[in-house]
Amino acid sequence: MLKLYQSQPSGNCYKIRLLLTQLDIPFEKIEIDIFKKESRTSEFLKKNLNGRVPVVETESGRFLPESNAILFYLSEGTPFFPDDRFERAQVMQWLFFEQYSHEPYIATSRYWISLLKKPEEYRQQLEQKREPGYAALRVMDEHLSDREFFVGDRYTIADIALFAYTHVADEGNFDLLGFSKILAWIERIKARPKYISIQE
Amino acid sequence: MLKLYQSQPSGNCYKIRLLLTQLDIPFEKIEIDIFKKESRTSEFLKKNLNGRVPVVETESGRFLPESNAILFYLSEGTPFFPDDRFERAQVMQWLFFEQYSHEPYIATSRYWISLLKKPEEYRQQLEQKREPGYAALRVMDEHLSDREFFVGDRYTIADIALFAYTHVADEGNFDLLGFSKILAWIERIKARPKYISIQE
Repeated sequence: MLKLYQSQPSGNCYKIRLLLTQLDIPFEKIEIDIFKKESRTSEFLKKNLNGRVPVVETESGRFLPESNAILFYLSEGTPFFPDDRFERAQVMQWLFFEQYSHEPYIATSRYWISLLKKPEEYRQQLEQKREPGYAALRVMDEHLSDREFFVGDRYTIADIALFAYTHVADEGNFDLLGFSKILAWIERIKARPKYISIQE
Repeated sequence: MLKLYQSQPSGNCYKIRLLLTQLDIPFEKIEIDIFKKESRTSEFLKKNLNGRVPVVETESGRFLPESNAILFYLSEGTPFFPDDRFERAQVMQWLFFEQYSHEPYIATSRYWISLLKKPEEYRQQLEQKREPGYAALRVMDEHLSDREFFVGDRYTIADIALFAYTHVADEGNFDLLGFSKILAWIERIKARPKYISIQE
């Protein structure tokens, strides 16, 4: 059975659980306590030299890190990844947008505020994260102004990747109230068959 | 003809020029002066809502941003992207590593020091970039300890993506002297057929 080395509250790990569940692929969760630096042990570094979760271990014992690379690996050849060449590239566009222009601001703020629970200690860094975080949300909201999903009018891994940290953006003190298109899109994702929450 | 909206000194744009040249695909360069914020004009935001270069315009007039998504788009079905499913995912692993764990430290330092030429103004931020930047280089060097290229013993877009900012890391005051495997890999890349430099 496929193994998922993960941290339950991590949005990057939630992406994988959500896709695996919606693909009906059984998997075993192995909890790595990142607060105890369990992803930096010499044993774990054999699975991922970069010392981060999630990592997937295939049935043949190979390891794959990087949440969005795992989404790609699991979704190729399924309805969650397009067949059309240009749409495939557009899915990638949003996956890279998520990791470069979204996650470092919105996920990191949530981590400091709601997981580490040290908003005062990180006050200055949190201030620096606000404008680029809201810029990412504005890009998403405008892109969604005339479409239901991020690529090709169909639910794909681009939606899963962006949903993971956007729907809990309030836990990093990002207010989604002004982003009506994002809010409607979040409800569409939550209504998908076999949807699971980040707690599951 | 394919159009590349780009900034010549940007490593992200260089990735695309290098691949297009090695694929023998003719293209037109359209220079966007990011120092004059030309990537943030309302005209340019129609090409990329996120206001960044590179952006590729296809012959049919469609726009694709995000350097690593463009590499994927151009390389699918060529020797620069593997056929094997797991190797394809491993290429993605390194592309996401590059954008999340490498570029924000090594490219940003080069930008502040050698392009903006304001090392004093950014002194504090530059200090914060050093440890994670060197951590990325250590991951690369260790990964290269028993292989010639990043994935599957063959030159792929994973090498192109990582090469772009690594081979000019010194311009961001990162010293590659202790990274013998990276230095040897850089020489292998420079020896590839149809290699072009970042100035070209």
